[in-house]
This record gives sequence, structure tokens and C-alpha cells, in this order.
Amino acid sequence: MKRIKVLKNIASANDAIAAQNRGLLDRYNILAINLMSSPGAGKTSLLLGTIAHLRHQLRLAVIEGDIASKIDADRISKEGIPVVQINTGGSCSLEAHMITNALEKLPLKTIDLLFIENVGNLICPAGFSLGEHRKVVVSSIAEGDDKPAKYPIMFSLADAVVINKIDLLPLQEFDLAGFHKKVTGLNPRVTIFEVSCKSGHGIEAWCSWLLQQLQNHRKT
Amino acid sequence: MKRIKVLKNIASANDAIAAQNRGLLDRYNILAINLMSSPGAGKTSLLLGTIAHLRHQLRLAVIEGDIASKIDADRISKEGIPVVQINTGGSCSLEAHMITNALEKLPLKTIDLLFIENVGNLICPAGFSLGEHRKVVVSSIAEGDDKPAKYPIMFSLADAVVINKIDLLPLQEFDLAGFHKKVTGLNPRVTIFEVSCKSGHGIEAWCSWLLQQLQNHRKT
Repeated sequence: MKRIKVLKNIASANDAIAAQNRGLLDRYNILAINLMSSPGAGKTSLLLGTIAHLRHQLRLAVIEGDIASKIDADRISKEGIPVVQINTGGSCSLEAHMITNALEKLPLKTIDLLFIENVGNLICPAGFSLGEHRKVVVSSIAEGDDKPAKYPIMFSLADAVVINKIDLLPLQEFDLAGFHKKVTGLNPRVTIFEVSCKSGHGIEAWCSWLLQQLQNHRKT
Repeated sequence: MKRIKVLKNIASANDAIAAQNRGLLDRYNILAINLMSSPGAGKTSLLLGTIAHLRHQLRLAVIEGDIASKIDADRISKEGIPVVQINTGGSCSLEAHMITNALEKLPLKTIDLLFIENVGNLICPAGFSLGEHRKVVVSSIAEGDDKPAKYPIMFSLADAVVINKIDLLPLQEFDLAGFHKKVTGLNPRVTIFEVSCKSGHGIEAWCSWLLQQLQNHRKT
């Protein structure tokens, strides 16, 4: 019982900090996207494809979360995009207070769209709001089509699901129609994209959605 | 500070139960393997390949861990192997007390080798001993070669690492030699297998290692 109480306290303290982060982002008119997935589903590759597509229309920035290493931040940094790396140590999700610290290091006045790449994990990040405006789950064809059934909370919270590595479809037993059905069953309001970061397939539709979200956000 | 203290208490309570589980397994001469990976790396496929290879030599059993669903237990059950499904709800790892309950449901007298398939997660399961004798990490070629750098704790604890989906190697930028070097740098005593559950490549070497581990275990 003590354990449950402490975990609940952690969650509500996190939510309060997340609300402050959202307030700060709103003051600067920034739309923040929390990008979540299993390890290796292709969050960073999706970011690189998105940067290539949107960099001349929007001012982008990235917060990178990982247990250890700065591999992903280095990949983004090469593109000349502002990036802050957070290493969580052992923690299995980014938490709102880590984002507060990262926001202090970013040039908020010159950002339209901020991506927060969460720790590779389909479980813990579902429990921590960061102050983001949209949650996006990346799921790779290589992981198999049963992920929505096994990790329903993550998929039910997503505003969008990006099915990545669609180029592997001919090589993999993957019921694409069944996957769509399962995800929309859990989450009827979700938008689903089929993408190959390798070939560029689907990147345009995904980027149009991002532009639309930014437009909607600035109207509100 | 309160949070750290509670988490430490949880860990030490877990370790005490894990030791009881190990004592029970030892009384029945069972070798238990804790199988861990990202979602979709192929733990269940590896189990199915292992069952096909070893079922006539050894008496096998499986404990299946998942957040939700009994998809994996159903796949194992079709093979006529004793299997218990644990659904953790929101919990991002199996914990020792869950194994205690599952062991009560298994025919311990007639088991040589028990596989515990953990929740798909490269972070949390590293923090919870279950009473197993060996820890095995499955890492798929599709996830990319940077996983040991990003999830060093998991790889440093493993007795063996199975690189699965080796058939995808020609399609993927994956530095195989670099992966081996990184893993053995973190963990010099580890044994690494290259496997394709799809083609069967490497299953024999992996099963020989399992047989050797059982032999060593019964000598001690």
C-alpha cells in the first residue's frame, strides 16, 4: 500500500510540473511532440526524415532522452538543429522535471516545433506526461503485429501511430489490416501513418499532419 | 529521498523472494532462464525454436510475462509444453513474487529447464531478480547496433546475448563486429549467439549452450 501511495505521489507531482512545462511552451507558441516507441523502432530515423522535410518551413528543435549515451543527440546535432540530450541513468522514462531543465537550454523564442524523443520503452513513458501537446507512438514492422494487444495503454494514449519499416512488410508475417483494426479499436481518434524512413515512403503525409497540428494548436 | 528509499526497499524485498524461488527450483533440480528483450525482438520465437530442438531430450516449461494479453502463452501451449501466463497490469517487469505464484501452478517434479519470458523491456527487468540461474538478452538486428551503448545495464548483466533476425543483416546497416565488441567490452564473460528463428540458423549452438548450463548447474 505504501508503494502505491508513493507512486501516486510521484505521478501527481510529475503532472504539476508537466502543466508548468506546457504553460511555458504555450507562451512561446511551440508545439511539443512526445515521441515514444520500443528500442530501435526508428524514432531518431523518423526525426531525421522529418527534419529533412520540414527544416525550410519550420524552426525545429529536439530533446533526446536515453538511459545512457548521446548517440541520438549527435545524429540530430549534425543537422544543425538545436538539441539537448537527457540521460536518465536507470529511469525507464523521461519525466517532466527533466524537460523543465532541458527547456532552459533551448532557444525557445526561435522554435515552432519541438520533438521530445523519449526513452525506448513501450510501458513507462505512458505514465509520465511531460507537458507535450501530442503523443506519437512509433511501431516497427519488425516488432510484429501483436504490440497493440500487448501494450494497450501506450497505443490508447497516442494521437498518432507511425508504423515504421514498412519496407520490411514483404519479408515479415505482419497482419497490417489487423494492426490498424486493433489500434483503432483501442483508440478511435488516432491517426495512423505507414512509413519507411529508409525509402522516405509516407514521410510527406506524416509531415502534413504535423503542420496541421501546429496550425490547430496556434488557433487555440 | 523518500522515493529512493521506497524503491530500495522494494528491491531488497524482491531479492529475498527471488532467493526463495531459487531455493525451490534447486530442490527440484530445475535450471531457470530469465529471457529479456525489447518488444518484438523474438523471445517467443526463440522459445518455439528451442522447444522444437530440445523437447525430446529435456522436460521444458515456460512462464510468460506480459503487460496484457495471453498471445505468447497460447503460442507455447499449442506445443503441449506446460505454461503459465502472468499479466503484470502496468508493471514494466516481472517481479519475484509473481514467479512464486506461477511456480505453484507448474509440475515442478517433471521439469528440467524452465524459461521465464520477461515483459518486453530493456530497462526495468534488469532491476528485478526472479530467482533465475541465467539471464539471457535477445537483441534483434532490426533494432540497430546501438542497443548495448544505450542499455548498458541489461547487457552487462547477461550470461548470454542472442542476436536474433540475423537473416535481416543484408538489409540493415548493422555493424556486427562492433556490436560484439561493445557487448564483450561491457561484459567480458558473456556468450553471444547469432540466430535466425526464421531459418533455424544458430539454434543448435544456442541449445548446446543450454544443455551445458544445465549440466554445470546439476554439478554444483
